[in-house]
Amino acid sequence: MDDIVPLRVDAARFREDFEALACIGATDDGGVHRPSLSPQHLAARAWFRQRAAQAGLEVTVDPAGNHSAVLRFPGAVKTLLLGSHLDSVPYGGRFDGPLGVLAALEALRTVREAGVRLPVNLEAIDFTDEEGTILGFLGSGAVAGCLSREVLRQPPGGRAALEAALARAGLHEDTLLDARRDPNTLAGYLELHIEQGPRLEKADVPIGVVTRIIGSRCLRIVFEGAANHAGTTPMTARSDAGVGAGAFVVSVRRTVVEHFPDSVANVGRIAFEPGVSNIIPGRASLLLEFRSLDRETLDDLQAALLEEARRIADREGLSITWQTVSAKEPAAMHPGAQAAITEAAEALGLKTVFLTSGAGHDAHPMAQVTPSGMIFVPSVGGISHQSAEFTHWEHCVQGANVLLGAALAMAGSSQAWDRG
Amino acid sequence: MDDIVPLRVDAARFREDFEALACIGATDDGGVHRPSLSPQHLAARAWFRQRAAQAGLEVTVDPAGNHSAVLRFPGAVKTLLLGSHLDSVPYGGRFDGPLGVLAALEALRTVREAGVRLPVNLEAIDFTDEEGTILGFLGSGAVAGCLSREVLRQPPGGRAALEAALARAGLHEDTLLDARRDPNTLAGYLELHIEQGPRLEKADVPIGVVTRIIGSRCLRIVFEGAANHAGTTPMTARSDAGVGAGAFVVSVRRTVVEHFPDSVANVGRIAFEPGVSNIIPGRASLLLEFRSLDRETLDDLQAALLEEARRIADREGLSITWQTVSAKEPAAMHPGAQAAITEAAEALGLKTVFLTSGAGHDAHPMAQVTPSGMIFVPSVGGISHQSAEFTHWEHCVQGANVLLGAALAMAGSSQAWDRG
Repeated sequence: MDDIVPLRVDAARFREDFEALACIGATDDGGVHRPSLSPQHLAARAWFRQRAAQAGLEVTVDPAGNHSAVLRFPGAVKTLLLGSHLDSVPYGGRFDGPLGVLAALEALRTVREAGVRLPVNLEAIDFTDEEGTILGFLGSGAVAGCLSREVLRQPPGGRAALEAALARAGLHEDTLLDARRDPNTLAGYLELHIEQGPRLEKADVPIGVVTRIIGSRCLRIVFEGAANHAGTTPMTARSDAGVGAGAFVVSVRRTVVEHFPDSVANVGRIAFEPGVSNIIPGRASLLLEFRSLDRETLDDLQAALLEEARRIADREGLSITWQTVSAKEPAAMHPGAQAAITEAAEALGLKTVFLTSGAGHDAHPMAQVTPSGMIFVPSVGGISHQSAEFTHWEHCVQGANVLLGAALAMAGSSQAWDRG
Repeated sequence: MDDIVPLRVDAARFREDFEALACIGATDDGGVHRPSLSPQHLAARAWFRQRAAQAGLEVTVDPAGNHSAVLRFPGAVKTLLLGSHLDSVPYGGRFDGPLGVLAALEALRTVREAGVRLPVNLEAIDFTDEEGTILGFLGSGAVAGCLSREVLRQPPGGRAALEAALARAGLHEDTLLDARRDPNTLAGYLELHIEQGPRLEKADVPIGVVTRIIGSRCLRIVFEGAANHAGTTPMTARSDAGVGAGAFVVSVRRTVVEHFPDSVANVGRIAFEPGVSNIIPGRASLLLEFRSLDRETLDDLQAALLEEARRIADREGLSITWQTVSAKEPAAMHPGAQAAITEAAEALGLKTVFLTSGAGHDAHPMAQVTPSGMIFVPSVGGISHQSAEFTHWEHCVQGANVLLGAALAMAGSSQAWDRG
């Protein structure tokens, strides 16, 4: 067995791609601003199509706008998807998403150039709107068949943003759901991604094998009080929705830290209305997101946070209303995919550790319909969703090689393992 | 003395005007939405010009956009201004501002029709942007000569809003300050306004004589932390600017209630950045407004609130920056104006009470340059700056008659008092 040499990606070409892509939507401080279906994101997709075509790969775009480079094999019926997303959060980093798409593209090029023949087709896919500029997991949700018309009617980013984004991309709301793939045509899904947390770096391990993806829910909570003149209304005679919302933001953290130590929560957006300095806020709305590894904890956490909101509203003479903006149940990664990743890393002499994912990923909806797995590489300082997001290039290449090896293993080919 | 009958306004015509004006920018719930220099406000001003011209009054518009109806008398050199504003806060009420402008217009019509001759001219004036959609007291500040180029460069509502508003109104930034009046040309300023607080109603007194107008300051405070992934960053490893801002909103009220019982404060606007559900707020900015009756208390309150902000920032691992958006020192009403108002009310058999004003008014800048006075009438439930704002019509008419009587007294004419 000592002479078995795993197939490896072309690290120089992979890096060239990474740096070229990072220029599209680049921000002054070294990050990227590439919200889904923005002109910057569409430019990144045009670049991806060009690079795929240059590599002799077939280029396809499905009704949800997902962009793919496909490597077909004679007689193959099923397709193994390798992917991630080219969109970013507003003013985000260069690694979150693109690393996985470019590693997938590079894996396909490497397989093609090596002349390896596989019993399943390989497809490198850039999923639409992973980050939720429009509604979140639009592309992978459509492919997995779990994107609903209900969410389309009331997208978290608003109808206007949805319609404008689809128009920019030449997509049609009526046909988005046609992107669904018959699960019988899928051989599985693999995704390489940065960890976005500090665990791999602290453990000094280059490869994380994801076991579960955390579930998350997002609620819109509105506190209603009475707008009134901020100069003439006594402090003790106010129903100030802003004070209620402020107290709630503080209590969210306290509730999670004290009672749900394995969960997280965030209030990422807030608005007071009418929103001027001289009027007491009559209305304060906020987006509350929280995540847990199992559904029961999500239920308990939601109940505890809503109870806090009600308690504060009662104390402040306010009323509250709330609605679910999005809900994603926790998802387990496939044991076979976990084994393929672990073995691919071992063949490369790389240490691995099992991890859960605190972030949602396209592997989340995909896991509902096909054996799915995720590979994590270390994030320096655990930093993500901002321009300072960084992963050492060595780790990026190691991750791409593990993706390639795991893909070959899942594709059912042993050819790559005995080339040496 | 028993046969002295004060001149009185035409209550029916006054009401007809009030109801016609309330239709311009009317909202479904009975309020008005007429931000300064909005199309609705400009329509209200066009209506005012028409009504003034129909009454045979001269109509003028100054370089700050202030609209006036003028009643000139032969030989008169000085002018007594009577006024208020036709703009509203966003989705505000029908009384705040328009009552004073329409009462002033009605007072001029009444004097003209009665054939009274006065030694000073009378001018009913609608001041631009009292409510601060653009920068607050733009019109009266310009007339009083206390509008600065500095504020114009960095208006609270932003440069874009300022430029768009001036363009809509056909005004020019370079000439705004030309609206300044030589104080030697002014005989004084009187303003009728709703109280916007509960004191007159509770005391069952129809006329408030304002002694002082509260001072106010508005600060923009920004908490800076670190934006990061809301799913992967442990709760205890965050620098969440939103939690800091939320805690500050709560502490503002506590600080004022516990240590500054005669002052008020409000956080009326807030924003988290980048402002999406799955990113921990790296930045939270808010507008803090606070008001006190004397400058020393304003200074002390500002110091205490900023100390609170710093304490919270230190605890949360955040930094803060702040800047003054606006500052208005407390202003005393002129003793002569207070006497004229009190005597006019007594002549009408109306009870009066001395009050301070918790709200800023155009009388505030005007008091810097000319003897100024304010008349308050009761606000039902103390409610203002919202559609439910209401004042009984009887009180509106009483206020208009007091304005007329006080104006005649200040104008130095005794003719009106012995017509009967």
